[in-house]
Amino acid sequence: MTPDPQTTPTLATLIDTYWKAVNTGDWDLFDTTLADDVVYDLPQTRERIRGKQAYSRFNRDYPGTWQTRVLRTIVESPQAATWTHTTMGLTELHAQTFFTTDPASGLITEITEFWPEPYEPPAGREHLVERY
Amino acid sequence: MTPDPQTTPTLATLIDTYWKAVNTGDWDLFDTTLADDVVYDLPQTRERIRGKQAYSRFNRDYPGTWQTRVLRTIVESPQAATWTHTTMGLTELHAQTFFTTDPASGLITEITEFWPEPYEPPAGREHLVERY
Repeated sequence: MTPDPQTTPTLATLIDTYWKAVNTGDWDLFDTTLADDVVYDLPQTRERIRGKQAYSRFNRDYPGTWQTRVLRTIVESPQAATWTHTTMGLTELHAQTFFTTDPASGLITEITEFWPEPYEPPAGREHLVERY
Repeated sequence: MTPDPQTTPTLATLIDTYWKAVNTGDWDLFDTTLADDVVYDLPQTRERIRGKQAYSRFNRDYPGTWQTRVLRTIVESPQAATWTHTTMGLTELHAQTFFTTDPASGLITEITEFWPEPYEPPAGREHLVERY
């Protein structure tokens, strides 16, 4: 769909607030970005969390500490995608998060998130590829 | 940045063409979406492929056959993101792809792609989560 220039800046701010809240552990601020019936989906584990209360609890209870940097935000209201990089102790992971928002409330109704892990590439393509 | 409603539909069409070409193995069509100096990046393996010729060859030589469905496309010109689902034999994977395009030529200049694999969730969150 064609983005709406009037709503897109608001959505960009919402996504920015979401990640600021995650990065600082400000879960009360985090909650203000979520619709009551938000659904959080992790296709890799086939896990789904329903509702703001459960999803906020999931984050509040998550063990350890982390630092998250937002590397890319793409907004096409009422949807958005981010690519983030999170450091948790010695672990560093990129995550990709797809958001859907309710145009009426401006709040997040669906989040689908991926946490890909590093792996060794298959042999046979070294002539086309550089490693970094 | 604020999307440009005049260029965004064109970019959406380009991304649609890119995935149609991948899905049908139409590599000549695929090439028409790429800038000569396109860079393809796989952060999981820390692999990088430079240039249309090498990236096209990488795809033309990729073993096996696949079917790719586009589940989500988000466009904010000159950038876009997609979430796709690919079936390769018995393997099914979700991929997330971040595109940057050159506003002048309308062609893809940067692609960063993730191929997360399924994993078993850690214990301790069953009370908040349903599996599917």
